[in-house]
Amino acid sequence: MPQQRRARLTRQAIVVAAAEEFDRTGYDATPLSAILRRSGVTKGAFYFHFASKEALALALVESQARRWPRVRGDWLRRELDPLSIAVGMLNEAARLIEQDVVLRAGTGLARHRIATAGCSDSEPDWESLLLDLLRRASEGGLLRPGVDPEAVARVAYAALVGARVIGSTRGPGTAARMEETWRVTLQGVASPEWLSNRRSR
Amino acid sequence: MPQQRRARLTRQAIVVAAAEEFDRTGYDATPLSAILRRSGVTKGAFYFHFASKEALALALVESQARRWPRVRGDWLRRELDPLSIAVGMLNEAARLIEQDVVLRAGTGLARHRIATAGCSDSEPDWESLLLDLLRRASEGGLLRPGVDPEAVARVAYAALVGARVIGSTRGPGTAARMEETWRVTLQGVASPEWLSNRRSR
Repeated sequence: MPQQRRARLTRQAIVVAAAEEFDRTGYDATPLSAILRRSGVTKGAFYFHFASKEALALALVESQARRWPRVRGDWLRRELDPLSIAVGMLNEAARLIEQDVVLRAGTGLARHRIATAGCSDSEPDWESLLLDLLRRASEGGLLRPGVDPEAVARVAYAALVGARVIGSTRGPGTAARMEETWRVTLQGVASPEWLSNRRSR
Repeated sequence: MPQQRRARLTRQAIVVAAAEEFDRTGYDATPLSAILRRSGVTKGAFYFHFASKEALALALVESQARRWPRVRGDWLRRELDPLSIAVGMLNEAARLIEQDVVLRAGTGLARHRIATAGCSDSEPDWESLLLDLLRRASEGGLLRPGVDPEAVARVAYAALVGARVIGSTRGPGTAARMEETWRVTLQGVASPEWLSNRRSR
């Protein structure tokens, strides 16, 4: 195996092992030795790729920060009404967080503030995007009269954060919780036409 | 000042300073020196009270764990219907988290898993309590027909967790976010009678 490819695989093994350990045990309670054991990588090989556990955590944060713009871009380009985009996008974000341990650990660490520097852009601004989509949904008559689109956007964003943090520690997972939030809130929020269109799809 | 009282005040100064630093900067990024500087306590005095930064964090977790049962007990003893108890209790929890930095930092650290040991009972089981209250609300006809009380309980709990994590980093604070979640969801969830009783109170 060419040396460059082997180095890439080693780095990936470290990243996945770290994500699994941080996700299961927590960042603080995970010693470097547990990451080495899980990845089957020597200390020397580890330090070839990362200067410290902290540097590894920052790599996870950067990795998730690179993933989200594509997910968001894909949804925004779909020929769907803005409310359907908001619903579908957050449901997919929750599904990805649940399925992909590297993404999940990185998203959690972005909130964790491992280091004060270099982390300001580590979280995508879901709330602003949702505010924009819900405002457009309101203008297009997709919400019931009197419903505050900004309140709905904030509730949906807090639901995603809450569903990620609670995760699989109890009851349904992140994706089922996000879908449940939409089911519970849309009933009193979306226009009857939008709801019946959704049911008939 | 008697020695015992002085020791208590020193301990309290350390706890408050640590809560403020952890809340502002994050647990990992806060060095012990920042806590000493903020509290005006010497290293020697610090180590008289706490063995390490980790021991101090665990004290914050234990302190919040002692607060919640009283808050919950007070609400459960009120002569209110179960839906009003659920709403009032979570709104008060959000308000306390927003107002009290020691409670807020401790509640955040309980999720943070500083250490793997001794933290299993560090979070009150809000979701089970909410499931019970919402089931009783459903049996008492306080929810609209067809509404799943367990889904509402899970959404409310995730909203509290999300509102705490987002906190004051952007837009409205934890308390306003929790109230907003109830406002948005109750409209499609609570019975028209319950809603009109609430408005007339």
